[in-house]
Amino acid sequence: MKAAVADADVQAVVDLIRERGLTTVLLPGGDHLAIGITSAIDPGVREPLANTIRTNAGVSHVVHVSRPYKLTSREFRNQSTVVNVGRASFGGPKVSVIAGPCSIESYEQLHETAVAIKEAGATILRGGAFKPRTSPYSFQGLQQKGLEILARVGQDVGLPTVTEVVDTHDVPVVAQHTDMLQIGARNMQNFALLVAAGRSDRPVLLKRGPSATIDELLFAAEYLLNEGNRNVVLCERGILPLDRTYTRNTLDVMAVPVLKEITHLPVIVDPSHATGYARYVRPAALAGLAAGADGLIVEVHPRPHEALSDGQQSLTPQDFAALMRAVDDVAVVIRKEAS
Amino acid sequence: MKAAVADADVQAVVDLIRERGLTTVLLPGGDHLAIGITSAIDPGVREPLANTIRTNAGVSHVVHVSRPYKLTSREFRNQSTVVNVGRASFGGPKVSVIAGPCSIESYEQLHETAVAIKEAGATILRGGAFKPRTSPYSFQGLQQKGLEILARVGQDVGLPTVTEVVDTHDVPVVAQHTDMLQIGARNMQNFALLVAAGRSDRPVLLKRGPSATIDELLFAAEYLLNEGNRNVVLCERGILPLDRTYTRNTLDVMAVPVLKEITHLPVIVDPSHATGYARYVRPAALAGLAAGADGLIVEVHPRPHEALSDGQQSLTPQDFAALMRAVDDVAVVIRKEAS
Amino acid sequence: MKAAVADADVQAVVDLIRERGLTTVLLPGGDHLAIGITSAIDPGVREPLANTIRTNAGVSHVVHVSRPYKLTSREFRNQSTVVNVGRASFGGPKVSVIAGPCSIESYEQLHETAVAIKEAGATILRGGAFKPRTSPYSFQGLQQKGLEILARVGQDVGLPTVTEVVDTHDVPVVAQHTDMLQIGARNMQNFALLVAAGRSDRPVLLKRGPSATIDELLFAAEYLLNEGNRNVVLCERGILPLDRTYTRNTLDVMAVPVLKEITHLPVIVDPSHATGYARYVRPAALAGLAAGADGLIVEVHPRPHEALSDGQQSLTPQDFAALMRAVDDVAVVIRKEAS
Amino acid sequence: MKAAVADADVQAVVDLIRERGLTTVLLPGGDHLAIGITSAIDPGVREPLANTIRTNAGVSHVVHVSRPYKLTSREFRNQSTVVNVGRASFGGPKVSVIAGPCSIESYEQLHETAVAIKEAGATILRGGAFKPRTSPYSFQGLQQKGLEILARVGQDVGLPTVTEVVDTHDVPVVAQHTDMLQIGARNMQNFALLVAAGRSDRPVLLKRGPSATIDELLFAAEYLLNEGNRNVVLCERGILPLDRTYTRNTLDVMAVPVLKEITHLPVIVDPSHATGYARYVRPAALAGLAAGADGLIVEVHPRPHEALSDGQQSLTPQDFAALMRAVDDVAVVIRKEAS
Repeated sequence: MKAAVADADVQAVVDLIRERGLTTVLLPGGDHLAIGITSAIDPGVREPLANTIRTNAGVSHVVHVSRPYKLTSREFRNQSTVVNVGRASFGGPKVSVIAGPCSIESYEQLHETAVAIKEAGATILRGGAFKPRTSPYSFQGLQQKGLEILARVGQDVGLPTVTEVVDTHDVPVVAQHTDMLQIGARNMQNFALLVAAGRSDRPVLLKRGPSATIDELLFAAEYLLNEGNRNVVLCERGILPLDRTYTRNTLDVMAVPVLKEITHLPVIVDPSHATGYARYVRPAALAGLAAGADGLIVEVHPRPHEALSDGQQSLTPQDFAALMRAVDDVAVVIRKEAS
Repeated sequence: MKAAVADADVQAVVDLIRERGLTTVLLPGGDHLAIGITSAIDPGVREPLANTIRTNAGVSHVVHVSRPYKLTSREFRNQSTVVNVGRASFGGPKVSVIAGPCSIESYEQLHETAVAIKEAGATILRGGAFKPRTSPYSFQGLQQKGLEILARVGQDVGLPTVTEVVDTHDVPVVAQHTDMLQIGARNMQNFALLVAAGRSDRPVLLKRGPSATIDELLFAAEYLLNEGNRNVVLCERGILPLDRTYTRNTLDVMAVPVLKEITHLPVIVDPSHATGYARYVRPAALAGLAAGADGLIVEVHPRPHEALSDGQQSLTPQDFAALMRAVDDVAVVIRKEAS
Repeated sequence: MKAAVADADVQAVVDLIRERGLTTVLLPGGDHLAIGITSAIDPGVREPLANTIRTNAGVSHVVHVSRPYKLTSREFRNQSTVVNVGRASFGGPKVSVIAGPCSIESYEQLHETAVAIKEAGATILRGGAFKPRTSPYSFQGLQQKGLEILARVGQDVGLPTVTEVVDTHDVPVVAQHTDMLQIGARNMQNFALLVAAGRSDRPVLLKRGPSATIDELLFAAEYLLNEGNRNVVLCERGILPLDRTYTRNTLDVMAVPVLKEITHLPVIVDPSHATGYARYVRPAALAGLAAGADGLIVEVHPRPHEALSDGQQSLTPQDFAALMRAVDDVAVVIRKEAS
Repeated sequence: MKAAVADADVQAVVDLIRERGLTTVLLPGGDHLAIGITSAIDPGVREPLANTIRTNAGVSHVVHVSRPYKLTSREFRNQSTVVNVGRASFGGPKVSVIAGPCSIESYEQLHETAVAIKEAGATILRGGAFKPRTSPYSFQGLQQKGLEILARVGQDVGLPTVTEVVDTHDVPVVAQHTDMLQIGARNMQNFALLVAAGRSDRPVLLKRGPSATIDELLFAAEYLLNEGNRNVVLCERGILPLDRTYTRNTLDVMAVPVLKEITHLPVIVDPSHATGYARYVRPAALAGLAAGADGLIVEVHPRPHEALSDGQQSLTPQDFAALMRAVDDVAVVIRKEAS
């Protein structure tokens, strides 16, 4: 629909579609308001319906989305989506960096980290309260208490926050304590959780599963958008490696330009999980930006060797500050190249 | 502990361990009652503690479990676990076969299938009510209504039932309507769901994730056992393929003997998902049995080409009956070979 | 062409095709002599040419082979190819087993092994003279001297032999000393070597590369057949594993029925390389047979712990004899099932 | 050995080692002449031998190389190796770019390409004469005639050249016509070919196999160095992908910093094969440089849609020139960051 369309005109088109037993989704954008038909349409019905819709008041144009995911596709919405979380902005001209510890361990630990990363230029604070761990005997996070610490530190330091949610049951309480919900890699196809997060009003950081294809990632995002949440940031965090001798995962850096071409959603890179070792975070981060990433999420801990989880891949605040200087240098060149 | 141990003796050992700040889990078996220490133990403490325990009444022996998963390990419990669900029995001398449609579509469809598979020798009826689907626009299952159909058909035909549960919230209602809970491949590391299923009194069929290592599968099982549920059946259902030209997944048939060596839990094979095509179900099933599997789970549909999901990989009742005759022949030879 | 066709009739059809600038290959079979056109044909030319050929004397029928590999395809030749090497026969009703040490170490070692495997029922002796090794510092085989030992032992014990050839330059000398040439997994796409082996009159055992798709394997076989060598046995020997904690490779057991469906060439399984451990050779071998394999190739060493290579995966003669008894039992059941 | 060591002192150390039945390799460098012991040494012998060597004239220091590959390791030679081919230089401060068509098709095609890439800043011309192709029916290259064209164009345009060699037999003739030998990905473990190329006096471009681990790549390089050829450039060209929907391979960009850390050999990236599509060459190339690559190899064709092979992934001369400007911009920033 044209940008300045009347509500009644929108409703008229929606009614027209629903009369035929088809489902619709509204996706507002800068220039247009898109009305998506998410049901399968019989090819014989498609063209006549399109012609009827075209004659309605306020209709700008009708397109057929050939990909199996609809709302996430650039065919459906060509303009890049910009997701704002406080001062952070993903998908626009700037590069935004999320940083913080793997696990929230105490107010002091998180506060010290938050001050340092803000000083270095990060714009969102991350920290895990509910930790999905391979072994039931590993540290499972501070849970509810961790959420409270995160909310307090975010407020005290002046940074928006993001944390992982691992169970549908926890979505409301996590949404209450944080500014952005994270769906972790191992939950990328936890469809019940995707539906719950899609119904939340918080932006969602959706991490790619370690063996998920590009299409599977976009279908997962489609679950979020299909529930009405269009503030979704995708994250490449490394895929299943050939072997684990030197890195924990394989950074699939080309997922960045592939995704940017297919979807209007912003794409960031997690160099910490993708590599598993602090000394590889810098080349992974710069490679991600050179490939066109809209931002980064980086693990930082004041004393990595004391971390309760992921210490091996966490940067010290000093190394993070050095990384941020390199990020700025590369971003300037690449974004100039890209424009 | 010895089999005929007094409760007070068990409690004395548990107290001894807990005094040191360590956690314990009880795992009753045929000959012994095992008391597992699941906390990490300082090596300097381990040997003195073992010596102290050995002097207690009713203690049979003390072993150190070297693997990171404890309760699932044969070091912890050497005797094979037998999981009984109605007349079906996994882990004993017999091979048991679960069969039924991918999705429950109607009472008639499920009833027709159940009669046929029972006649052919299957001992558990499967059918999906909550379907985890890659796309939000695919058929999501009949949900609550599907559970009710499953319970009714199971009762009417006289077969125990198994169905997948996809959300922690649904565990009680699914447990109420079915005899065995299935954790699907994509939820293998949904730890919140594992904890919830581990607290249920229903046996659990745990499917291996498509990119999960053997260790990750055993850690997932450990979550279940750690919550007190020791009736766990593991299922190999195919891993990430080199390419998808000819099969949907790669049947990792050697996972069967590898698992049988490491864990006391029964292991079955899903030839339907492992291959994705009805014509490959038979060689995959027989290969699984030849490798030592304790059973199978097979998709059967009265009219595969009309199935709402997975029709391509579903057997007709006739083909299933033919498969069951081959299963019997191979099982006789292999079980003789194995004994 | 019909079986009793005159040479002149064959030549007439070949001339007809070559006049149009297309290349031909002759592939004699039991019932028919096939004339393959291996050039790409313009679709507009295809049907008129087929019609012209059909009118020629001696022509039985004309088929279009839709797969990109032609001569290896069942569309081109439906009847299963039987490859005979001495008393061994691959692709017919019997299962044949190749056995012997990874490396030939001495006349005594090889002779002792050969006597034992013949006694147990193996029909071909294997032994490596030229060893492709990941490290240049590992034992590279006895080379020329190894070939001579292999030829002598084969003669003395009365078994045909197979050994790997790793360089085009060595094809003649290896063909002179052995009854069957092996192309190893890492040379599966060494096209120069395939061409050289395709020009040899020895049958070829072609092992699948660890990351080769089914199509890539069949294209490699096509190189052999395209040079005129139609005695090719394919071998599944394990593909790239998810991780190497428990097995050296992943036995892709379903490659067997997939290949048997697409190609007329026989297919065997190498349970030794597929698993990497002697204790997994038996379940892997039986699973391969259950999936329809025409034979096995198994590493046997009189004293595995003293072997210069692959000791960990070599069976003792005793274990091999036990395996052969199980092979017979399973083959009887499966071949009955299949017929 | 110290840099200004006398030949007699070197010989004395070599003799000392050989007396013990161990093999040695000389590897001259900028500051030192290294003498490598490539045989396995009994741990009880190692320390006494090291002490004896240390007392010899001209010896600077003795190190134990813990990695299984020796000569390629930074433990053996810490200083980065610089490989010079004409004006091109890999491993030093500058980034060098190899460019040209996949296949040499004619003098005119190659000359037109060579003029364009030289103008854009490339310093080596690539072009395939012997083409390893999956199908025997695909264009196999102009072979000998292609070599002659390559040599003539290189001379006429003033660019050194590199081309692939696929058979041990061809090494002399290829070395005679070109300035650098390429070992292709599918031949990375063709050990006979590695030995032959290792005996050539031409620098070698060694491409990583699509499923080769880092260790396997370094062992392949070790074969080259072990034969005395120390001018080896490693090339990451994409590994086996999760799926092939969007890219032909997966660019393993982190292989670059991992390799740079372990080996002293230069590392370049092939964004054309890694991605398979011209539109992804640019982000892949820039990501490679951002990760620390010493150079690139890029496919360029004057009319990609007419190319006899790999047209889909070939850049036009115009797009290549644009890429070279971006390469310069990123290299300036990254090399500044790195220093």
